[in-house]
Amino acid sequence: MMSALRVAIAQINTVVGDLDGNVGRATAAIEAAAAADADVVVLPELTVTGYPVEDLVLKPGFVRASKVAMEKVAASTGSCVAIVGFVDGEGDDVWNGLAVCAHGRVVGVYHKRCLPNYDVFDELRTFRAGAEPHQLYEIAGVAVGVTICEDAWIADGPVTELARGGAQVIVNINGSPFAAGKVPVREKLLRDRISEGGVPIVYANLVGGQDDLVFDGGSMVLDGSGRLIARAERFVENLLVMDMPATPTSSIEPYPRVAVTTGRESARPPVESPMAAVLDPSEELWRALVLGTRDYVHKNGFRDVCLGVSGGIDSSLVATLAVDALGAEHVHAVLMPSRFSSEHSVADAERLCANLGIDSRTIPIEAAHRAFLEMLEPSFGDLASDVTEENIQSRIRGVVLMALANKFGWLVLTTGNKSELAVGYSTLYGDTAGAYACIKDVWKTTVYELCRWRNEQAGFELIPESVLTKVPSAELRPDQRDDESLPPYDVLDPILVSYVEDDLTVAEILAMDLAPAETVRRMCRLVDIAEYKRRQSPVGVRVSQKAFGRDRRIPMTNHFRG
Amino acid sequence: MMSALRVAIAQINTVVGDLDGNVGRATAAIEAAAAADADVVVLPELTVTGYPVEDLVLKPGFVRASKVAMEKVAASTGSCVAIVGFVDGEGDDVWNGLAVCAHGRVVGVYHKRCLPNYDVFDELRTFRAGAEPHQLYEIAGVAVGVTICEDAWIADGPVTELARGGAQVIVNINGSPFAAGKVPVREKLLRDRISEGGVPIVYANLVGGQDDLVFDGGSMVLDGSGRLIARAERFVENLLVMDMPATPTSSIEPYPRVAVTTGRESARPPVESPMAAVLDPSEELWRALVLGTRDYVHKNGFRDVCLGVSGGIDSSLVATLAVDALGAEHVHAVLMPSRFSSEHSVADAERLCANLGIDSRTIPIEAAHRAFLEMLEPSFGDLASDVTEENIQSRIRGVVLMALANKFGWLVLTTGNKSELAVGYSTLYGDTAGAYACIKDVWKTTVYELCRWRNEQAGFELIPESVLTKVPSAELRPDQRDDESLPPYDVLDPILVSYVEDDLTVAEILAMDLAPAETVRRMCRLVDIAEYKRRQSPVGVRVSQKAFGRDRRIPMTNHFRG
Repeated sequence: MMSALRVAIAQINTVVGDLDGNVGRATAAIEAAAAADADVVVLPELTVTGYPVEDLVLKPGFVRASKVAMEKVAASTGSCVAIVGFVDGEGDDVWNGLAVCAHGRVVGVYHKRCLPNYDVFDELRTFRAGAEPHQLYEIAGVAVGVTICEDAWIADGPVTELARGGAQVIVNINGSPFAAGKVPVREKLLRDRISEGGVPIVYANLVGGQDDLVFDGGSMVLDGSGRLIARAERFVENLLVMDMPATPTSSIEPYPRVAVTTGRESARPPVESPMAAVLDPSEELWRALVLGTRDYVHKNGFRDVCLGVSGGIDSSLVATLAVDALGAEHVHAVLMPSRFSSEHSVADAERLCANLGIDSRTIPIEAAHRAFLEMLEPSFGDLASDVTEENIQSRIRGVVLMALANKFGWLVLTTGNKSELAVGYSTLYGDTAGAYACIKDVWKTTVYELCRWRNEQAGFELIPESVLTKVPSAELRPDQRDDESLPPYDVLDPILVSYVEDDLTVAEILAMDLAPAETVRRMCRLVDIAEYKRRQSPVGVRVSQKAFGRDRRIPMTNHFRG
Repeated sequence: MMSALRVAIAQINTVVGDLDGNVGRATAAIEAAAAADADVVVLPELTVTGYPVEDLVLKPGFVRASKVAMEKVAASTGSCVAIVGFVDGEGDDVWNGLAVCAHGRVVGVYHKRCLPNYDVFDELRTFRAGAEPHQLYEIAGVAVGVTICEDAWIADGPVTELARGGAQVIVNINGSPFAAGKVPVREKLLRDRISEGGVPIVYANLVGGQDDLVFDGGSMVLDGSGRLIARAERFVENLLVMDMPATPTSSIEPYPRVAVTTGRESARPPVESPMAAVLDPSEELWRALVLGTRDYVHKNGFRDVCLGVSGGIDSSLVATLAVDALGAEHVHAVLMPSRFSSEHSVADAERLCANLGIDSRTIPIEAAHRAFLEMLEPSFGDLASDVTEENIQSRIRGVVLMALANKFGWLVLTTGNKSELAVGYSTLYGDTAGAYACIKDVWKTTVYELCRWRNEQAGFELIPESVLTKVPSAELRPDQRDDESLPPYDVLDPILVSYVEDDLTVAEILAMDLAPAETVRRMCRLVDIAEYKRRQSPVGVRVSQKAFGRDRRIPMTNHFRG
């Protein structure tokens, strides 16, 4: 069968605001696609500006710069047609757009019609919805309809309109962030669109980390029957090249077509469509955390990180992730034992560092601990010890880590997980102090799963087994155990998922009979109270459908107890 | 002239999520309006839930609770018609609504049609836009049209439609946050609507603080010629009662009317319309800062605050604001001199505390300072002193303040101003550590103006004159001066206003010739870099049209240098 159209998907890692850099990334990808004899190369959403650009779009000068960058990319094109995302418009009329370019110029522009304004997305804040009449691009004789991301999520929306208007192939360019288990959701969605219009879809996704978001790539092509016929690797840059089977056209109300000459005349041997393997849940999660952490550090101009390593499971996991993200030589562990630290904790922390092959140092906090207690003695007098003294220890550790980071140009990674962040089981300016919170969106029960998975991959106890089996403790007072203040994590996490991710009320959760009523009430109340802590905590990789942060905008001053 | 309609505006201070409390506040206001022989009483936007409710609306149980609370308010009504805001709907169809209630029941419901999704507003995220056919409410023989907030900001929008459809009075209920100089903007806006429809507008606004927002009240009534005929006090709860002059009706396409019997038959003596005085810019700003601070503290269940008082102007201002907000007996000053503190600073701080009559204590930080330097010596070795050591001092102060707050149940107020927050002239987890940042949206040049204004009000040097005249210094190293690192504030602030509030690019600011090019470039770059600090800094009162926070959503990872 002769190929109708050779399609390349350039799954590249753009950087927000780096217009010159993104132009370079785009032109290199276009060149590589041309070298692979592609007729068309598809780049991710907002290629030249990076994604998401948020309120940068409100700067008119930024929009102008985006258009200039877009012209530069267009100028670099030859006979391989490039579909490139950019911010278009001026004044109050600004769109999330794409340009179809060839032979050094922009042939046509499309503006995203469906703007997501939920979860982490605020696109109605900054963009107008596109509303121009539809048109198709005839590329190598094939009628191609172009759309952007959310356009494909809407039933009987732009994708289906274009199919009904004569498109033989739909291109959909995306900035679709990772969430655990999202790949089947995307595939179902594309199949839903194909069931409406019967036209193949080329789904191009961004890859890379941007603040709290990780874009996982996983670009793919589905044929007109909804069958997956090509899939790119996830979490890495990739140029997917495939030959699109010829598709019949059956237009009932044909849209106007813009002919784009590709100039290619000679036959070419067919290419085999790549089909990347599916990742299991722990692996996709691990790779998301690694990529998010790496890109936050590198894109912000840093190479090295430090973190407090306590011998507990959270800091052990984060140290291991950091090594996978940045390389062992760029990770610096700091052991900061206090008068309450157990011997086994120190031993576990040391063993972990040795296993990972990372720099480690021990800075006992006793001197500062004693100094603060003396400084505060005139104020505190005979008052009993309470959480105040526990917080002081945690904050001393925060000061030490920040001092090392300041002096040596490192970033501090924090080690709190989503369960702790939810109930506020942390010290603000203490263990929450740092630039990036790698596992802030990972429930504690999943923390265990990830450690076990990573040890399996390593083939030995990379994270010492004793770390996985000991009773969790913050070790901020003698013989402290997490389970004195909180229910066991396998009881706690389902309550928190219901309250935080599923937006259930306390009454609804009580009806689920997950734990004693008093426990459920107290845990949900802790979630409310801890909102002020979360507001001042660092960002970290979003891996769920509802992370703390811009995904969940709950007032701090909030008397609702339902 | 006989009054056609007696209108009461209940400018009340609702609390977000406090549905029972808000029902109580609403019913008390309705009772007071009835006692004043009002025909109709108008309450603020989202009366029963508080405003803004943000993602609480995504909890179906919250929406159900709102409707139950609304029924309770309706049940309390008699012959005085009440117009009450609430969240209406269920499932995916949820509206920002209001109910017209009388004689114990809901007579009709209106859904906000124009949803703001800019600045601090995200209403398209949580609400659907109302689209039901218009109707009017005939109250005491007068045709009343009802609208909500943004509905009145749109030219030829709902207000004007209702006027053309026969309304003789338009009611507009608001949750309109304060920004400096906003009152004339609101008045102009209402006049614009009146110029379109020729119908009087009853503008009811919320009062009180909610996290970063302050609602300033200032409810008002404009007649059909656009003349202001009644105005409520600002920054306080108020029941404004006024007699609306009779208005002719001239409907070209009349909307259906719902007759609401008011049951009042006897004549009543006319009331005089209140007309609150206009506040000058310093006074309105001062009162906004005071109300925002007071409500954050009180609505979150606290009575007392502490803060570090250095003898500098920012902490002097915040201490004075705190006293006005909470009372001198609830403010605790902490002097934390270091080896670099000057004698005059300590003396100024002590004098301020004496003037304010507040509790103060001195906790020198030397012991902890020395302890940290010793703990870090093995890591730092012979490396030169730099910003690391400065940050350590600031962070020690943060630990001390948080320890006092934890032990005594106080909140910590931070003292950074908008200029510092902009360029990152602060230490994360140091002077940024605290619950509420009272002056985070006040430029440094305005800090001086406010201090001078407050001293004038006091009639003496409440804030010592030496605080106002000394060269600003963080005193974190010997002889440090702010103007070694930064241009003078009267040069700096206009650059920052252009870059932050006006969204100009560096190139555009350079063309304004405000300072040497190198200075402009460096300051704008500092603003970009400091984004990570601002993300972890506490909220504080928003007083400008673009505060740092949800008003300005700029990525941290951002390579744009334009």
